[in-house]
Amino acid sequence: MTLVLGGARSGKSALAERVVLRAGGAPVYIATAQAWDDEMRARIAQHRAQRDGQGWETVEAPLDLSGALTDLDPARPVLIDCLTLWLTNHLLAEHAIDQQVGGLIDALQGRPGPTVLVANEVGLGIVPDNALARAFRDHAGRCNQRIAAMADTVVFTAAGLPMVLKGALPPGI
Amino acid sequence: MTLVLGGARSGKSALAERVVLRAGGAPVYIATAQAWDDEMRARIAQHRAQRDGQGWETVEAPLDLSGALTDLDPARPVLIDCLTLWLTNHLLAEHAIDQQVGGLIDALQGRPGPTVLVANEVGLGIVPDNALARAFRDHAGRCNQRIAAMADTVVFTAAGLPMVLKGALPPGI
Amino acid sequence: MTLVLGGARSGKSALAERVVLRAGGAPVYIATAQAWDDEMRARIAQHRAQRDGQGWETVEAPLDLSGALTDLDPARPVLIDCLTLWLTNHLLAEHAIDQQVGGLIDALQGRPGPTVLVANEVGLGIVPDNALARAFRDHAGRCNQRIAAMADTVVFTAAGLPMVLKGALPPGI
Repeated sequence: MTLVLGGARSGKSALAERVVLRAGGAPVYIATAQAWDDEMRARIAQHRAQRDGQGWETVEAPLDLSGALTDLDPARPVLIDCLTLWLTNHLLAEHAIDQQVGGLIDALQGRPGPTVLVANEVGLGIVPDNALARAFRDHAGRCNQRIAAMADTVVFTAAGLPMVLKGALPPGI
Repeated sequence: MTLVLGGARSGKSALAERVVLRAGGAPVYIATAQAWDDEMRARIAQHRAQRDGQGWETVEAPLDLSGALTDLDPARPVLIDCLTLWLTNHLLAEHAIDQQVGGLIDALQGRPGPTVLVANEVGLGIVPDNALARAFRDHAGRCNQRIAAMADTVVFTAAGLPMVLKGALPPGI
Repeated sequence: MTLVLGGARSGKSALAERVVLRAGGAPVYIATAQAWDDEMRARIAQHRAQRDGQGWETVEAPLDLSGALTDLDPARPVLIDCLTLWLTNHLLAEHAIDQQVGGLIDALQGRPGPTVLVANEVGLGIVPDNALARAFRDHAGRCNQRIAAMADTVVFTAAGLPMVLKGALPPGI
């Protein structure tokens, strides 16, 4: 299990895709994004176009990520992109975040196959003005810590390049 | 002397506490937080609960950090949590920041005992709209540079995991 | 070619200057900053004062960075400070960003001399409220990835200290 952390446009999804493809087998892409507007729709379409022709199966799971994971063949390589949008969706739905993260952790612990998760680091700017953004930042940071604690490998990406925080990437990634 | 840098909810305080506890002796926690509202009071209470039963003495020093340091037995291990809130308190009080940081550096240079400082990295987001936030970001970055220059060990935390920028953490931390 | 990434007040310009001065020869400082107001003028004057007496030639290129590069003796060591302000200037001028970055990459590929670029990492905070800031963040992240891919050495600075992402810094920097 690998966690790829990074900022916006830091190349974390591309790196995560390379790690999953390296694992071989028929990869599954679990997309947590929900298209709220045209900007979002354009981003989702762009990401999908990047995966085109590489043999990915795409599953959409904006909320029920643990359900999507347990529905899959546990041996298949999976990319979850991304945890931060999934948390956003639950926060907007006013769900209990810690409980959702607990359910995800249970589902991840039951997976023998290669699993790569992408998450945003969002806590390195000025303290946000509004309370919802501050709460989100706290939830995202805590979720990242819990997933990082159980992951074999954790990397932080900047400008498309990884810094290894824990474990090791496959050679040549 | 160790500086632990990181974002919000990056696990920097927990890491800093482990470094201080590893030093042995009777640890002192110097808290710079001031409770402005219920959200802040809840955070402070949560942090205190995490230290409960581990034998910490807590000293509150929202402004006079160098005074708090020189009042202590210089051999006792100390955790200062955190520099960024301390700077905020001085900025809101309209004190001269560079002078305050200079006074802190003098107090730190006189300490033979283990000293661990926690600070936020706040300069990795979009340029803030308001001038006070920009000034704060500049002060925080400059303070972090000055403290990092004199520290033996500097780490950057993300998702609870340290990246070593200078020196080395004790084994097993 | 070296790319120095980092946040505001992370010490990236000072590090980049040391790398260029280490290369020897008559260094050129290409400044992309435009003074919009007194705050900006003060920052620019402060940066210039820091380079005073070190033998730098300063060239101002808020927009035509590739032109400035091709006008120089290709063997002279050059510091470009910084890419992020240059992108901001083009975004405000409503120029096509990807094309500008392409032109810069062409100019960089033709340079045999030591070239050091400074850029801000701006994608590690909460998603900005306004669409222009989000677009800027995307452009900056993509530009950083393209430049990082062609650079020999890429470092990320925090509190004045470098983390090497690719290649290696000269010894003692």
